Amino acid sequence: MSTIPYKIYLEENEMPKQWYNVRADMKKKPAPILNPGTLQPVTLEELSGIFCTELAKQELDDTTPYFDIPQEILSFYRMYRPSPLVRAYCLEEKLGTPAHIYYKFEGNNTSGSHKLNSAIAQAYYAKKQGLKGVTTETGAGQWGTALSMACSYFDLDCQVYMVKVSYEQKPFRREVMRTCGATVAPSPSMNTEVGRKINAEFPGTTGSLGCAISEAVEAAVTQDGYRYVLGSVLAQVLLHQSVIGLETKAALDKYGIKADMIIGCAGGGSNLGGLISPFAGEMLRGEAKYDIIAVEPASCPSLTRGVYAYDFCDTGKVCPLAKMYTLGSSFIPSANHAGGLRYHGMSSIVSELYDQKLISARSVEQTSVFEAATTFARVEGILPAPESSHAIRVAIDEALKCKETGEEKNIVFGLTGTGYFDMVAYQKYNDGEMSDYIPTDEDLQKSISQMPKVD
Amino acid sequence: MSTIPYKIYLEENEMPKQWYNVRADMKKKPAPILNPGTLQPVTLEELSGIFCTELAKQELDDTTPYFDIPQEILSFYRMYRPSPLVRAYCLEEKLGTPAHIYYKFEGNNTSGSHKLNSAIAQAYYAKKQGLKGVTTETGAGQWGTALSMACSYFDLDCQVYMVKVSYEQKPFRREVMRTCGATVAPSPSMNTEVGRKINAEFPGTTGSLGCAISEAVEAAVTQDGYRYVLGSVLAQVLLHQSVIGLETKAALDKYGIKADMIIGCAGGGSNLGGLISPFAGEMLRGEAKYDIIAVEPASCPSLTRGVYAYDFCDTGKVCPLAKMYTLGSSFIPSANHAGGLRYHGMSSIVSELYDQKLISARSVEQTSVFEAATTFARVEGILPAPESSHAIRVAIDEALKCKETGEEKNIVFGLTGTGYFDMVAYQKYNDGEMSDYIPTDEDLQKSISQMPKVD
Repeated sequence: MSTIPYKIYLEENEMPKQWYNVRADMKKKPAPILNPGTLQPVTLEELSGIFCTELAKQELDDTTPYFDIPQEILSFYRMYRPSPLVRAYCLEEKLGTPAHIYYKFEGNNTSGSHKLNSAIAQAYYAKKQGLKGVTTETGAGQWGTALSMACSYFDLDCQVYMVKVSYEQKPFRREVMRTCGATVAPSPSMNTEVGRKINAEFPGTTGSLGCAISEAVEAAVTQDGYRYVLGSVLAQVLLHQSVIGLETKAALDKYGIKADMIIGCAGGGSNLGGLISPFAGEMLRGEAKYDIIAVEPASCPSLTRGVYAYDFCDTGKVCPLAKMYTLGSSFIPSANHAGGLRYHGMSSIVSELYDQKLISARSVEQTSVFEAATTFARVEGILPAPESSHAIRVAIDEALKCKETGEEKNIVFGLTGTGYFDMVAYQKYNDGEMSDYIPTDEDLQKSISQMPKVD
Repeated sequence: MSTIPYKIYLEENEMPKQWYNVRADMKKKPAPILNPGTLQPVTLEELSGIFCTELAKQELDDTTPYFDIPQEILSFYRMYRPSPLVRAYCLEEKLGTPAHIYYKFEGNNTSGSHKLNSAIAQAYYAKKQGLKGVTTETGAGQWGTALSMACSYFDLDCQVYMVKVSYEQKPFRREVMRTCGATVAPSPSMNTEVGRKINAEFPGTTGSLGCAISEAVEAAVTQDGYRYVLGSVLAQVLLHQSVIGLETKAALDKYGIKADMIIGCAGGGSNLGGLISPFAGEMLRGEAKYDIIAVEPASCPSLTRGVYAYDFCDTGKVCPLAKMYTLGSSFIPSANHAGGLRYHGMSSIVSELYDQKLISARSVEQTSVFEAATTFARVEGILPAPESSHAIRVAIDEALKCKETGEEKNIVFGLTGTGYFDMVAYQKYNDGEMSDYIPTDEDLQKSISQMPKVD
């Protein structure tokens, strides 16, 4: 047996005590986010009306490299972190590859994903600011669950607007949120003006993420002592998620392993950005070289087929504009697409790193993603989330290339979470009823042409 | 902060390499299991017709104290073990108790529970014997999922008979099993003679565990190269599950912690028996003293209200008889009962230890169990399985007693698994629609009077 254990757990005293802000090491910074009304860079004051002040500061700070993780957050992290860096011995054997495959597993907490890393930070700053609660939207419920857990820990009110179709068809995550004490409203609801308006205009509508965002923002700004929080895309979220990459790097360093390739799935970029931050930092400082690959669904290919331009971050067009790789905020992936990562754009940090060619991107089709997920589940004993399985797909592809070339590459990928709440999609795959969908150039042209025109 | 970390993970080289057979240290052994036809102790030959030969040997061996864990099983264990022994700092703070609470968490694997510890052992011996596959029954699907995972690892065929009502109403675990490559049939099925007969006699029946066992046993004995496997109650299962207790003891010893109290939920006894085995062994050898508590549902109270006598292990009456605490094999807990642990009897080892007063037992009602589960989920960040939450209930009760007395007891309990597939029960609790049920003395008298008469 190798001297590298199946699972590398850091000791508690080896866990990161600071988050890393990769923007500080970028010579060319991501473009500033813009006020959707004035199209001017958002000020701290403007941003503090929507977000907690401390989080607004983090959002706008592109020069401070390290932020101390507050003690209260470190204590919470110790409940479910460090997460293991797992050597996929069984998968390697199954594939017959000389490559060494490692995955950083973020699914060992009830939210089932890495989302908790930022949820607890955002809840902490809300509590510290003396707020009563926070509002957010959620689609399938991964982010909403993480936020509910975080808010229950700090005894903070949590109001979740859940897209109505998910609220009704995926009641289980809703119940996890309620068990944590959150209020979950099907969106469009009758709680907000925008919700009532949409319900009146489109009776019987099953909602959309754009609508849920609008409701959550309205609820935040119209209630005393509330702010709005978001689980991806933002720079503050990538900052908090850097804990994934920092732990990964510490675990690799501990065993003297040099990663050749780092692979992560990319929807809004929270996991990918967090995983790669310290590695990208080394590259930016000229200290190391890695092959970093962002994996996105072929049905929602913002990096591989989008444009790099200012766009709305939300379909409701209430949030600031960001310069990013985007398919246009009016783009909605086919309902046929089961595997998450449905966001039209991409974190502006990830976008800028991609534009600087520090990272590459690849898109994969969902049937091949579920095939990889099934292979992985059968030998590694973890049922992966469809999102995470995008990274598994490319990790397997790369390991098979090593089989041909005989290269002993160290392949590291992010396993963001578990698929326990995604069994409807697995069933579709098991029953042979899953098909692939790739938007046509015309589809993309249409949504891209509807984007705002900003220099 | 205390020097005891939130989570104690053993190093791989500290993991147990042998299972411990507590029967070896019992002066008065559990009574032998009997052939249901002859009412004589079952022979190895008889037992080998149903179970793999090596497992049948383990079942009958009450003198060998340690069994080497085969290398292949150790490798599999390393995929998800060691499981953490967690110090429940946040729960202690919430309760304001001076007690130190620890829980051994077995839910960090896709089967969601400790069941995998024995499933992989049973699959291994089946593979080693050159069998083609195994058959089993499952209710809600926890055991079936664990067995499917184990069989996929050894490339062994796995046929699961799932009670039809669960098959239809709880499709998610079914899909996890199918994703692992298992065949899942709703029971009663048309695959077996007994299934066809029951379907003909009771058209539209939604099945029962007794019926599913009968189908699984028939499928095992009528197909070449198949054996039947079972996830609880049996002595072999407790042997494999001793890995839980051995790891727990090693982790406590590593930090010089002396447990005062060890608490486990008890249905068939697989988790409780595994957790307490090494501690009970110390007591049996006069080396230590612990307060060991088995916690069962008030709606299915085999230890606290049953009789200690020979009974059928299955409602279908095809398996051997065991001397155990039992409510009678015809006892079926109220449909109102949501929290698992629905077995009418109790492992004969646990029963004998209880009869010798080495362990005590307590029954708890389900609304108080879900209240404890919710408290735990909100502060410890793990959504517990309803079964595990029986142990949480008593751990909290005992910690609150310590708050009154000021005692700094070390309370250790087994957290057998996660509740991700139990959200219907949580919803019922969240909606205030859960009630309690305690069988009347007459209910119990009736099922107990139907038991076989064996001296």
